[in-house]
Amino acid sequence: MAAFQKLIDLIKEKKTLLCVGLDTDLDKIPEVFPKNSSGITEFNKEIIVSTKDLAIAYKINFAFYEQYGVAGYKALYDTFKAIPPSHFVIADAKRGDIGNTSMAYAKSIFDYFNADSITVNPYMGYDSLSPFFHYKDKIIFILALTSNQGAFDYQKQKINNEELYKLVIKKTSVSYNFEQTGYVVGGTHPEEIGEIRKLVPRHLLLIPGIGAQGGNIDSVLKANGNSPAVVNVSRAIIYPDGSGDYFERVRNKAEYYSKALQIL
Amino acid sequence: MAAFQKLIDLIKEKKTLLCVGLDTDLDKIPEVFPKNSSGITEFNKEIIVSTKDLAIAYKINFAFYEQYGVAGYKALYDTFKAIPPSHFVIADAKRGDIGNTSMAYAKSIFDYFNADSITVNPYMGYDSLSPFFHYKDKIIFILALTSNQGAFDYQKQKINNEELYKLVIKKTSVSYNFEQTGYVVGGTHPEEIGEIRKLVPRHLLLIPGIGAQGGNIDSVLKANGNSPAVVNVSRAIIYPDGSGDYFERVRNKAEYYSKALQIL
Repeated sequence: MAAFQKLIDLIKEKKTLLCVGLDTDLDKIPEVFPKNSSGITEFNKEIIVSTKDLAIAYKINFAFYEQYGVAGYKALYDTFKAIPPSHFVIADAKRGDIGNTSMAYAKSIFDYFNADSITVNPYMGYDSLSPFFHYKDKIIFILALTSNQGAFDYQKQKINNEELYKLVIKKTSVSYNFEQTGYVVGGTHPEEIGEIRKLVPRHLLLIPGIGAQGGNIDSVLKANGNSPAVVNVSRAIIYPDGSGDYFERVRNKAEYYSKALQIL
Repeated sequence: MAAFQKLIDLIKEKKTLLCVGLDTDLDKIPEVFPKNSSGITEFNKEIIVSTKDLAIAYKINFAFYEQYGVAGYKALYDTFKAIPPSHFVIADAKRGDIGNTSMAYAKSIFDYFNADSITVNPYMGYDSLSPFFHYKDKIIFILALTSNQGAFDYQKQKINNEELYKLVIKKTSVSYNFEQTGYVVGGTHPEEIGEIRKLVPRHLLLIPGIGAQGGNIDSVLKANGNSPAVVNVSRAIIYPDGSGDYFERVRNKAEYYSKALQIL
């Protein structure tokens, strides 16, 4: 099944937009896990068991695995394998390069890891993104307006009276099939989510920045309306505060966010 | 020694700007090499032996290794190890994400692979690049104006009467120490290299797009003047046309480019 339909069906079935982000860092996971690549994979498996009925998707942040080199890359592979095929998987890799290089990145993400989707960076323009779109059944989430402070440096600068991130959305939403195209928009910008929804009501949004980064859920949901979206929470779920059994706390946090991100 | 000084010394010593790009693809290397990760590493070692007296630097394009998954990542590691410490190494990974994620990417590139430099994407702004600059002895090459057609989509769009790529250069050249900061500017834009040199005469430029991508060497050298730069050639050297011994042809191509990129 095409990734778009898979995600739409998951949202309908589970009635939540929750995606759990696997930003797994050996310095932050409980000490019972070995400080090596098996520790990362085992921790992720426990997170998945504790959250899979509450979430529709998992987002895997490549940087956290790459920092451990070849062993981390093995944990990345094993983590992809550990996610049930019922769930939607986002390769959060923020790739993008000239054509023949983007094609090699696309092979990595879609042929090797078999992800449902990838995050890509639009700075290098049309021909840097096209190779990803050769994979017709996948979703390409293009960075539009990110959750960090640096979003103001370039993304919110105006080109012909319109912010760069809107130019990115306008150009790419015309160039590519809408079922293959999604946008990353930080949950720290609810007002702009409303504006973006006027431009692309049917496109998927991937909304990070909720939880540790401070985005407000109610404002985000209100601004998004009934359009299809997936909302990522990483640190607030996988590194829960409080005391008591670690994975019970993970589950409690996931329950909280799953419910907060409920849709009708 | 800081990477900046290492590269300046190499340019002075060898009097060429040639960087050889290791865009190694199993479908393109001679059939005598096994079609696996050892084949990639062995091929790269032969390229290095054939070119090291003619080049000052090697650029390793991560995508080509990542397409082969864990085995490719092992070849990536082995390729880094195979480059003599005398040479300057560029991790061409085009990374960039929110702060804690960019920090993990920086650990991967500088702590694990021990590269002298990395290419990064500025779209996410200041705080997405800062973590890389915590590594004081390294060089961060920021994408400014890339060699592909897509450079016209956003990089050449005007913000307050000035192209986005110039805004990137102006902001980042003020924010960061110049010995740590370099810019990627495609060799397909010699005129703009001249304009960029007016803005940042002392900064390092990494100039790709020569050879297979069609950039003109004489125009590039003229536009760059006596400023420090490294010019990358990948496919035209590592996949030489013609017949006869493969690595003799590689060496002939490298000699041609090393001489063409000579400086006084």
